Amino acid sequence: MTATPARIHAMQPTHFTPVPLDKAYRLLNHGPTVLVSASHAGEDNAMAAAWACALDFAPPKVTVVLDKATRTRELVEASGQFALQLPTQAMAALTVAVGTDSAKTHPDKLRQHGVQLFHAPGHATPLVQGCAAWLLCRVIPEPHNQQAYDLFIGEVVAAWADDRVFRNGHWEFDTAPDALRTLHYVAGGQFYATGASVRV
Amino acid sequence: MTATPARIHAMQPTHFTPVPLDKAYRLLNHGPTVLVSASHAGEDNAMAAAWACALDFAPPKVTVVLDKATRTRELVEASGQFALQLPTQAMAALTVAVGTDSAKTHPDKLRQHGVQLFHAPGHATPLVQGCAAWLLCRVIPEPHNQQAYDLFIGEVVAAWADDRVFRNGHWEFDTAPDALRTLHYVAGGQFYATGASVRV
Repeated sequence: MTATPARIHAMQPTHFTPVPLDKAYRLLNHGPTVLVSASHAGEDNAMAAAWACALDFAPPKVTVVLDKATRTRELVEASGQFALQLPTQAMAALTVAVGTDSAKTHPDKLRQHGVQLFHAPGHATPLVQGCAAWLLCRVIPEPHNQQAYDLFIGEVVAAWADDRVFRNGHWEFDTAPDALRTLHYVAGGQFYATGASVRV
Repeated sequence: MTATPARIHAMQPTHFTPVPLDKAYRLLNHGPTVLVSASHAGEDNAMAAAWACALDFAPPKVTVVLDKATRTRELVEASGQFALQLPTQAMAALTVAVGTDSAKTHPDKLRQHGVQLFHAPGHATPLVQGCAAWLLCRVIPEPHNQQAYDLFIGEVVAAWADDRVFRNGHWEFDTAPDALRTLHYVAGGQFYATGASVRV
């Protein structure tokens, strides 16, 4: 029997606010851990990745490392699209869970771990509910990087953030609940939350 | 007149402790802003970079984006070596300063901004005093990435950390002074410090 993961689609979040592309790099600049989502031929998936990074300002580009063992990578390769999104402190357990279990062995992992997906209008790649920011990307094919280093380059084509924590081009973590802070993974189920603002 | 930057060399820091290479990825996993240092033909330099990321576990590899306008990039290309190091909260102003001023226009920028360099025994690439961790890397030449994306790949050949904040393979920010927390740059002179530990 082939298990087909159910598509679990929620409404667009209430604080889902567009971010201009010239400010999109700021969503990743502080080095947060991300969830990577992708979809192909009716199959959605999402995984965690600590190794994602901004690569350019305009047009905004990103790098992300996607292990060959992951189902999400196969969907990224098949569709040429992926989304990066920033889980909040409230989503730490979910982040470890979807980073540990593979859809190859746990085809129902999104449902098991309470991951709710939604779509931005006009975009096929699903986004994960509850995140602090979302970046929709198209793959810039670089076969050598993908094969030798598991390194994918994407151009950001659209971006949004939760306007409780990012507005007018700036993160505003200090005025929002700690549950909405972003996460920085270390190892062994341990993260650091994004901390206090330091201005020079 | 050609200004030759003075080499400013300090003693090795007192808390400079080797990190096994299989734990080196943990020094970058939380996405901190780094200082990039390099040396060639007697000239040392250092700059700030928010876009550095782990790339592999074993052997540990990293990526870092180095703009073509920077003198540090030229030293990296000439020597085939660089170091990434993690400035602390106490070094926020220094980090912005060496990320803003180029040695091309400010040949004495290290001295002007109070950057003190030291050497690990047996390594030519200088390291920056006061940081929380240091990763010495050799460039894995990838001319297309370097030219098209300003993206450099390095293999970590040695690593150290300040044992007040990283010991036995783990960050221990919560038991150290806040001044030793690492930094995550956003834009416009604003960082977030690495915050509270979140365990799943």
